[in-house]
Amino acid sequence: MSNKAPWITFRPELKVLDCTVRDGGLVNAHQFSDAFVAAVYRACLESGIDYMEIGYKNSQRVFPTERFGPWRHCEEADLRRVVGDHDAEVTGLKLAAMADAGKSEWQTQLLPASESVLSMIRVAFYAHQVSEAVDMIRHACELGYETTANLMAVSNITETEIDTVLEAIAETPASTMVIVDSFGHLYREQIDRLYNKYAMALAGTGMEIGIHAHNNLQLAFANTIEAIILGCNRVDATLFGFGRGAGNCHTELLLGFLRNPKFNVRPLIEVIQEQMLPLRQELDWGPSVPYNITGQLNQHPRAAIEWRDGATPDDYLSFYDRVVSEI
Amino acid sequence: MSNKAPWITFRPELKVLDCTVRDGGLVNAHQFSDAFVAAVYRACLESGIDYMEIGYKNSQRVFPTERFGPWRHCEEADLRRVVGDHDAEVTGLKLAAMADAGKSEWQTQLLPASESVLSMIRVAFYAHQVSEAVDMIRHACELGYETTANLMAVSNITETEIDTVLEAIAETPASTMVIVDSFGHLYREQIDRLYNKYAMALAGTGMEIGIHAHNNLQLAFANTIEAIILGCNRVDATLFGFGRGAGNCHTELLLGFLRNPKFNVRPLIEVIQEQMLPLRQELDWGPSVPYNITGQLNQHPRAAIEWRDGATPDDYLSFYDRVVSEI
Repeated sequence: MSNKAPWITFRPELKVLDCTVRDGGLVNAHQFSDAFVAAVYRACLESGIDYMEIGYKNSQRVFPTERFGPWRHCEEADLRRVVGDHDAEVTGLKLAAMADAGKSEWQTQLLPASESVLSMIRVAFYAHQVSEAVDMIRHACELGYETTANLMAVSNITETEIDTVLEAIAETPASTMVIVDSFGHLYREQIDRLYNKYAMALAGTGMEIGIHAHNNLQLAFANTIEAIILGCNRVDATLFGFGRGAGNCHTELLLGFLRNPKFNVRPLIEVIQEQMLPLRQELDWGPSVPYNITGQLNQHPRAAIEWRDGATPDDYLSFYDRVVSEI
Repeated sequence: MSNKAPWITFRPELKVLDCTVRDGGLVNAHQFSDAFVAAVYRACLESGIDYMEIGYKNSQRVFPTERFGPWRHCEEADLRRVVGDHDAEVTGLKLAAMADAGKSEWQTQLLPASESVLSMIRVAFYAHQVSEAVDMIRHACELGYETTANLMAVSNITETEIDTVLEAIAETPASTMVIVDSFGHLYREQIDRLYNKYAMALAGTGMEIGIHAHNNLQLAFANTIEAIILGCNRVDATLFGFGRGAGNCHTELLLGFLRNPKFNVRPLIEVIQEQMLPLRQELDWGPSVPYNITGQLNQHPRAAIEWRDGATPDDYLSFYDRVVSEI
């Protein structure tokens, strides 16, 4: 047993990304008011957050503007309406957007980074989309963006698939590879195994490892801490855990855990009270028994989300019986 | 990195204690109906839970029956009204009650175990009460009970105090010493340090180590998993996390994690739906920002509970400002 007390020190290289607008937007088709996004932006600035993921860079053909709000597409004009001529160098806050393989027109949709308020493109993909993801990463890097590789649903694919993806990503100029527990299924020992696998495959590339956790089993914050202990330096969270289904690791819990004095939790508490609590009256998110069940079974939370949106959201037992009967 | 997948195996010696009625009763002065306690009892029986803590064995002078329900005192007649002539040998479920140092009349209150439906007495104490706790443990063991030592608020005392308590408890016939994170303050690395300290001090005694976690930082389940990985074989939880303030580790999450096929989560989901959801309409519990704050500051949740019961339960910012100004 070491005598160090690492939890009262900090690693300056650890960076926090708040993805409230991007990931939370999956709850409401990214139909946020400008005032909401501006409030989150201000809170990120004032609390010392390193990256704010302000939406998706997704196709308007796949996600038509009649049904999806502007934060699904992150047109430059929409961004600047809220953040003005945001300057990451001056503010210390970098803006990010996520582009999905298969759902983006990345060849034409991205401006050069020098013409955008965005500094980072996060490339999200499933294992079978890795070839497109590699092309997307190269393209975004050539345009001057910092770029990350986010392999989704990692709990649901084989070791061989993960290894193959890691080999491909190791050859790219991505700055970070993120462990994404889309189904909120992973326990601590599985985080350890994945982290070690990622670290071994990416050794020598200089790539950082990130963590993106969901709260189906009330383990999003715990798994994030575990990943940090292991060496993850890129950490995702959302305000008040806002996110589809059981939601995410809470940004305010994370900042309370980190000991870097540059972080300030007070602006987060303020924006939670002013923006997230009213939103919570309209929208359902956060761990509940249906999400516990899909998380434990390593299933997409889709069925649980539909159940919670249905006529009998609290009939947990019927949901359990149905899911178990379908295994 | 080991190639074992320990999370899909199990340790048969790991025992689960449900303390819904005992610890949850702190929310409502143990004013449960017989029907509620009977429903929890049935769920524990049917789900394969090892111990059900059915209340406190506390003084009627300190907790008068006008204000406190029968589960604060666990009179034998009250117990038998709900569980009949419960037999732990036949059912596989042992009933437990908790006796606090300083708040119990243990010299006169306990029947011999052979005359009671109770099999276990858990002795709860603060560090300065360890001498009384040792006497209580010896007395309960002499009466034939399995007995545990539950040192409360362990996050708030010095290493020397913990060491002194462990030395004293190591000399007793207690079966288990429980790590009790009363303030919900501990992070994973602190669980590791405490577990190792307890294990070293109790080595050779045959005593088991237990874990009792609170959910102020959404880490109750995670810290329980961590303790299990380290070797804890006695694990506390409550249905739907029912408990004062932020509540406890959820029994249904815990049973979903454990791989012992004797456990069945379905009866827990049923009793949650039928008993805990209606209760949740009346009573406030579970993690929220005020509990996050007291947990992070290693404070008793008292101030947060009062705030949540007050006129502005969702004015998180004023609570934060007040607490921070008082540090």
